[in-house]
Amino acid sequence: MDISDWRKKIDELDIEIVRLISQRAAAARAIGELKRTADLPVYEPRREQDVFDRVRAANPGPLADAELLHVYERIIDVMRTLQRRDL
Amino acid sequence: MDISDWRKKIDELDIEIVRLISQRAAAARAIGELKRTADLPVYEPRREQDVFDRVRAANPGPLADAELLHVYERIIDVMRTLQRRDL
Repeated sequence: MDISDWRKKIDELDIEIVRLISQRAAAARAIGELKRTADLPVYEPRREQDVFDRVRAANPGPLADAELLHVYERIIDVMRTLQRRDL
Repeated sequence: MDISDWRKKIDELDIEIVRLISQRAAAARAIGELKRTADLPVYEPRREQDVFDRVRAANPGPLADAELLHVYERIIDVMRTLQRRDL
């Protein structure tokens, strides 16, 4: 495969990644609404640590755990903003 | 669905997201190796802009384009580090 073939592959993966991150955001928004109803805090450090642990455990490579967690920190950060934005 | 149901859904999505980001990283690493052989630069701003444009076009919500791009900036950043790390 040449560079252009790999880029086509990446473009296909990006469509899927965007779809799944958006589904994750919809779920996070639903949780945000339930938390608001129950008067629970948006920020739950133990749940976030649990997510990071699962991500680390699921990492097949080639990214280092720290690199993948770097991406996930941003995902969690954006989800938290979404939960607060919808309040 | 209650909070615990939505969290199970998120945990399932995270496994898929980790899998796809890892596949994307493997493709980026392959491109990095081809670039090294061809003596091409790792950083190609036009290609990165192209990726951001596709992500924006594929965004179904509920995240704002800026929020999704915020995640993608981190993904691209980590991929670039991977390409350089393997040099």
